[in-house]
Formats: sequence, structure tokens, C-alpha cells
Amino acid sequence: MRESQREPDPLQREPDPLQREPDPMIAEILATGDEIRSGALVDTNSAHIALRLEEYGAAVTRHACVGDDMDRLAEIIGEIAGRADLCVVTGGLGPTTDDLSAAAAARAAGADLVLDERALADIQAFFDRRDRPMGPSNRKQAMMPAGARPLYNPVGTAPGFDLLLGRCRFFFLPGVPHEMRRMLDDAVLPAVTRMAGTDRDFIRVRSLSTFGLPESTVGERVALVPERFEGVKLGLRARFPVIQVKLYACGRDAAAIDSRLEEAAAWVRQTLGNRVFSEGEAQMPAVVGELLRKAGATVAAAESCTGGLIANWLTDVPGSSDYFLFSGVTYSNEAKVRVLGVSADTLAECGAVHERTAAEMAEGARRLAGATYAVATTGIAGPAGGTVEKPVGTVCIGLAGPEGTEAHRFQMAFPTRSANKIVFAMTALDRLRLRLLLGARPKGDL
Amino acid sequence: MRESQREPDPLQREPDPLQREPDPMIAEILATGDEIRSGALVDTNSAHIALRLEEYGAAVTRHACVGDDMDRLAEIIGEIAGRADLCVVTGGLGPTTDDLSAAAAARAAGADLVLDERALADIQAFFDRRDRPMGPSNRKQAMMPAGARPLYNPVGTAPGFDLLLGRCRFFFLPGVPHEMRRMLDDAVLPAVTRMAGTDRDFIRVRSLSTFGLPESTVGERVALVPERFEGVKLGLRARFPVIQVKLYACGRDAAAIDSRLEEAAAWVRQTLGNRVFSEGEAQMPAVVGELLRKAGATVAAAESCTGGLIANWLTDVPGSSDYFLFSGVTYSNEAKVRVLGVSADTLAECGAVHERTAAEMAEGARRLAGATYAVATTGIAGPAGGTVEKPVGTVCIGLAGPEGTEAHRFQMAFPTRSANKIVFAMTALDRLRLRLLLGARPKGDL
Repeated sequence: MRESQREPDPLQREPDPLQREPDPMIAEILATGDEIRSGALVDTNSAHIALRLEEYGAAVTRHACVGDDMDRLAEIIGEIAGRADLCVVTGGLGPTTDDLSAAAAARAAGADLVLDERALADIQAFFDRRDRPMGPSNRKQAMMPAGARPLYNPVGTAPGFDLLLGRCRFFFLPGVPHEMRRMLDDAVLPAVTRMAGTDRDFIRVRSLSTFGLPESTVGERVALVPERFEGVKLGLRARFPVIQVKLYACGRDAAAIDSRLEEAAAWVRQTLGNRVFSEGEAQMPAVVGELLRKAGATVAAAESCTGGLIANWLTDVPGSSDYFLFSGVTYSNEAKVRVLGVSADTLAECGAVHERTAAEMAEGARRLAGATYAVATTGIAGPAGGTVEKPVGTVCIGLAGPEGTEAHRFQMAFPTRSANKIVFAMTALDRLRLRLLLGARPKGDL
Repeated sequence: MRESQREPDPLQREPDPLQREPDPMIAEILATGDEIRSGALVDTNSAHIALRLEEYGAAVTRHACVGDDMDRLAEIIGEIAGRADLCVVTGGLGPTTDDLSAAAAARAAGADLVLDERALADIQAFFDRRDRPMGPSNRKQAMMPAGARPLYNPVGTAPGFDLLLGRCRFFFLPGVPHEMRRMLDDAVLPAVTRMAGTDRDFIRVRSLSTFGLPESTVGERVALVPERFEGVKLGLRARFPVIQVKLYACGRDAAAIDSRLEEAAAWVRQTLGNRVFSEGEAQMPAVVGELLRKAGATVAAAESCTGGLIANWLTDVPGSSDYFLFSGVTYSNEAKVRVLGVSADTLAECGAVHERTAAEMAEGARRLAGATYAVATTGIAGPAGGTVEKPVGTVCIGLAGPEGTEAHRFQMAFPTRSANKIVFAMTALDRLRLRLLLGARPKGDL
């Protein structure tokens, strides 16, 4: 049955554009380590690897996890070698005696562990750059099965390696997420493209990130994509509190796919309007930062219920000191008055959680920091502190700028204190984003 | 070889106290569904199940994941049936055509799918209680392999079932986390206890959290635990930037194990001194909060390079409004002067990243907020902004309190901006913790 004749399923997530390929590249993922095996750590690496491998045209069929156990590691590596074309293994490359991946790979391959001089030099250089002595245990990290090729790790001491075992090319990467991600992009994905050859279909993915609508509403609004744009498949991904709309297409003609996806993306942008805050993977603080930079504007914050989260997010973006000046985390009423100049009368009349208080907080932070804009949050993140009139999840958000001041009350219903803080902070940044995009405060605002 | 005769391995992580049990119950976990397989969703169920199964005495050896694919599901169920004593399967019990778990189990068992009247009645009752009509597709959810026993789902429509296949008892549970968790507790864990019999050992774990020493140093200092305390095993777990020392013991006499573990924990506390900041799972902000509460003290912060992270952490703790008053996130020099009252001369002479600046920031925040204590951070989180004299990773931390003001410079070497922010913020909270514990500032400080 052709895609265009099927019932559109708006909530279909992450369709696999390759499942009808004639000869898919079968990929498996193996997470190692007792922390994952015992449940002490949740394995987030495998999901990331699966997404990336499928974007690059592999068909992920299995994930597995085993602990730091030589017999079980060698056994499962042997199984995968007979079943998959490609396998990404994470973890077990550290300097300690329970880091067993290289030894287990050697055992599965029936090969010796040998010292790789290039890997050793890379490890030595890593320590030299940091003026730290290299310990004897780090030398172990340069031991690899004979026949393996080292993979350079630019952000840590553990080099990876790749090795052909049976029909399967194994990529051994560190378990530390940022090291794994970097090496996946640098070494594994280009190899996937090469292994796929040149006669394969092109696969393209476009992602649009939205904030402010429930997943079901986003799904309903974009449900017609597969009907309107032949060959374009639709997926939704929820990454609290962001809902991503993903558009997939594959075919032999890259330019044709790109232009069909661009049409579909344009339609989604029009359908969802300003709820779309970015294309690609850029997150809200970086998007707002970029808008501030383009406007030559600066920002300050006044945070009560978000407790510094807005400032923390903004300052996680490299280079944010160009536009971020100040946040006053004023948890106590006294700090709201003394630091931000909120009027004691306002607090007495309206209380801390009120639009007027939020407006005065924003104006105070803007004045104090000499910033172009300031956002303010005051609300009840829970679990305690709620009342019938202002239950947990109530937040007032103020925004002051050269165009004037606005303040709004929102009522959220999320189950935890940290979920509330996150959604409060996102809402504040989203108001600032809209102001920077639209250039004026909405009519009728405070 | 007896444990006490072995070379102590200080870096052995997460030893499995069950692995030398005469006859451990081997458990595996299988997550099903295309959302997990493709990486659209991170699988948090498997970690939860692993933790709970091990608490109840099973030895989890493998996790696996496959998608909604009949052949692959039946294949892996067959493999596990020949390898494990117990398997928990999640997902694939819904009403749609791609929910295949029951059909795959039937195929692996060579059994027919049959309608279970009790399960059907439960599903009907679920809809009746909610005054909703039961759809025809929900009838499919009562179809189970012949020989399976239904497991009641009190919180959703999908009943589970258990089934003996080969040597392995399979428990099929829904993939929705709160349904899975409820049925795991209600149906699976009691069965694990029954399967294990009543003559099993008790297992006890003690955790001590440390900050400020590298993992290798912690490992060396506590390496003698297994030698000094017979039957106590040692594990280290790194949860950046915290290193946890875990002590395990098992035996038939619970009181004897507890007292041996207490002796070992006391020795570790003495060996590592103030580097141990908590027992159990309490994190630094909660530990500092509890010390502040006990002292009847309040706290403020002045954050430059940590960008609000200290405030965000402190306010993540429920009830923190009792002691946390204010943080001034003063990214710009102007904000340091205008908000915190740092002297322009100090900034001109010493620069923003300097002990004197940190001390004045702490004193300014303390004065402004009227707090008992204030911590201050100013440093270079990177990636840009480093100099030869003050490279990325340099931080000055100030602490002001009734006993006086101290300020220190630290040089860290972590690879990312966010790692630096985290370790800077932890260092600041740790200084405050030590002051609250020791009650005076160290001699010779600024």
C-alpha cells in the first residue's frame, strides 16, 4: 500500500523511513557497565545513538545491556557479530580493572590485546595539554584487540576503536555521554555513510521545536502533512516541555527531497505559527540569546519561583556574557523590595504572586541592570505553598522593555516542583522571544 | 578463593553481592516498542525494574530492546527462555495492531492465543468504572497465550500475564511507566520472593557521598575495607562531581551484617574525614540546607560564573524558602558594582576573577539580603575568556558569615562549560558546608 493512500496517523512517532528499504543496514547498540545493568543509571546513550544511526540510514533492530562481566561481554559481542552489520558499544574503556570492553572484544575476536602507539600518544597529549601527569593505569586505555583501528577522542582520555568481527563492524565508544556523542558524530556516522555506499537513498529529517501546545494538539494540527506532501512522513517527539515535529523523506534525488521537505516545513510553520521557536536542535535559551544578539539588546531577570533557573539556562550558552547582565533571585519578599525596588504596598495589597508584583520585579531588574529587557517570575512551584485561589502551578510572568511592561498569570498543572520550575522558566523566555520577534507588547496587557 | 584473600581492588564498581551466591536467580529485562528502539523515547522502565529486582534478590544479567516486529520479538523471547530464570517484558499490550507482545509470546511458546474471560471482565470493569464504552479493539487485550495467567492492572486497561517458557518465567507488563511500576510491585516482586524461597541471605548496602577528591584517590584511601572488614565489599560510583563509596555485605544474620557495615562506614568516614558530605542519597544542596535549618541560619549568594546554578540547586529543595533569601547573578562588572557594592577600585586593580572581588561580592550579597551567610563565585567557565594567568577553569570563591570572610582561588580542569559551572557551584556549597560544620573560618584566610 502506498503511503499516500494510508490513513494519516497524527500521533505516529518516529516512523522508520527505512523499514521498506530493499537491503537495510542492520545496526545494534550495546551499553555496558554495572551502573546501567543494575539500574543505578538510566541509559540515555542508546536512545541518542539509535536516533542518529537511523537518521543516517541504518535500521536499528536491537539494544542490549550487560554489566562489567568478561564472560557475558564476550558472549554478547559474539552474538551480535553474527547478526548485525554495525554495532555501537558504549562504556568500559576507562583506566580501571573493571573496564573490560577491549579485553572482551579481543576474546570474542580470538585476538591479542596490543598496545596502540597512536592511541597512547593521544592519551599522553591529552594529559600534556592539561599539565597533568599521566598515570600508569591510563596506559591500559591504549591496549586494543589486534586489528582494531583507534578512534580519536578529542574530549577525554579514553580512545575508542573499531573492529570487524564476523559480518559486523563494531565501534567501541566511551560511556560518558558528551564524549560518546562527539565520537559518534566524528567517527561513526561518516563510516555509516561510507558503508551505505553511494547508491542508497538519501534520507532527510527536518525538526521544528514547539512550546506551549499539548502534544495531542500539535499532532492534530499537523496531521495532514503526509496527505498534503507525498512521501513526507511525520513524527512527534516530546522532550518536556518541548514538542518536536519531525518530517522525514527519503528518495534517490536529494534536491527533490529537500524541496519537498522545505514545502512541508513551511506549511507546519504556518499552521503552528509562533509556537515554533526553532528549527533543528537549538534550544530556547540559545534562540532567545540569538534574537537578543541580533537586536543588539541586553537582558536581565528577576526570579522568584524559578530560583535562578532562567539565569542558569541563559548562562549555559557560550558567549552569553555579551547580552546577559544580571538576575536577581529574590526568594524573600524583603529581597524583592530591597534589591528590585518592588513596592511594599504592592506586596501587601496583591501578595508576592501577582501580575503587579511580576511587573514591578521586571521593571526593577531592568532599571538596576541597565538592560534593554527584563523578565520576572513569581509563582508557586510546590509541593507546599498552594492555596485555593493560587494553587501550586500558578505563575505570574512580567516582561519589561523599551516598548513597555506586560504581565500575565498562567495556571500550569505539572506533577513536580522541578517540572513547574522548568515550565515557568520556559514560559518567561517564550514571552521575551515573542516580544523580540513581534517588536511590541500585545495590546491590553498590563 | 575467599574474598579476604583476594587483592583488594579499590576501583571495583558496583560489585554484585549476588554473583557468588550458590544459585542466583538470573533475571533479564526486555523493553519492546518502536519508540524505544528508534530512540524517540528513553527507556527509564528497565533501570527501575533492574533496581527493584536486585533489591529482591535476583541477579539482573541483561537488558534488551526490540521494536514492534513479530519475528524479532518471538526470536528474542525464545533466546531468553533458554538463558534466564525470570524475565520482565514491558510494552506491546495495548489495543492497536502493532501491540504484538501476546502474539509473539504465543508464537515462541508454540501455543494458541485464547481469550481470557477474567482479563476481559477486568477490562470491561475498568471502562464501566469510568462510564466509557469499551471499544472492540480492547477485547484484543484479553487475548493471551494458552497457559498464561492474567495479571490484574488496577490503573489501566492493559492486563499483563505471566507464562513459563523453557526454564524462564516471563512477566509481561504494560510500557506506561506508572502502570508498569504498580504491577511490578503488586505481581512480580512477590513472585520473585516466592521463587527465591525463604532461606536466602540478606543484602545490605551503605553509601557515603564524597566531594573534592578524584575517584582514584578515594579508591586508594578506602582500598583496605575488604581486608579490614571481612565480608564487606567495596564499590565506587562516580556521579559527577560526586564520588560515592558503596559498602555491601550479605549473610544470613541481618543484625550481624548491619553492625559490620556500620563499623566499615565509621572507618570510611574517619579515613575520608570531611570529604564525606552525606550518607545515603542526600545531595549537597539538601545537606547544606539541613545544616542551615539546624543552625537557624539563612543564606544568600552572589554568582558570576555559576550563573544562577547555586540558587537553582538550593531552590530545588522543597522548603528552601525557609533559609534561602537571595542570589545576585551579576554577570556584568556593572552589576557587581551597582547591585552588590563591589568597589570599582577592586575591579580595576584585581579584575573580576580575584579573591578580593569574590570576598566583596559575598559581603555585598550578605549585607543586601540580611543573610547569616553568603557565598560568591567569580571565574572562567569557558570555552572562551581564559588567559595564561587565569585559564578556563579558574574560580574564586568567597564566603561571608558572622565569623568573617574567606576567599580562595581554585584551578579546575574540566572539559565543558557546564561541567565547570557544576564543579564551581559544588565547591562554593562545600565551603559553606564546612563553615557550618566547623563553626569558624580557617586561619590564614582572607
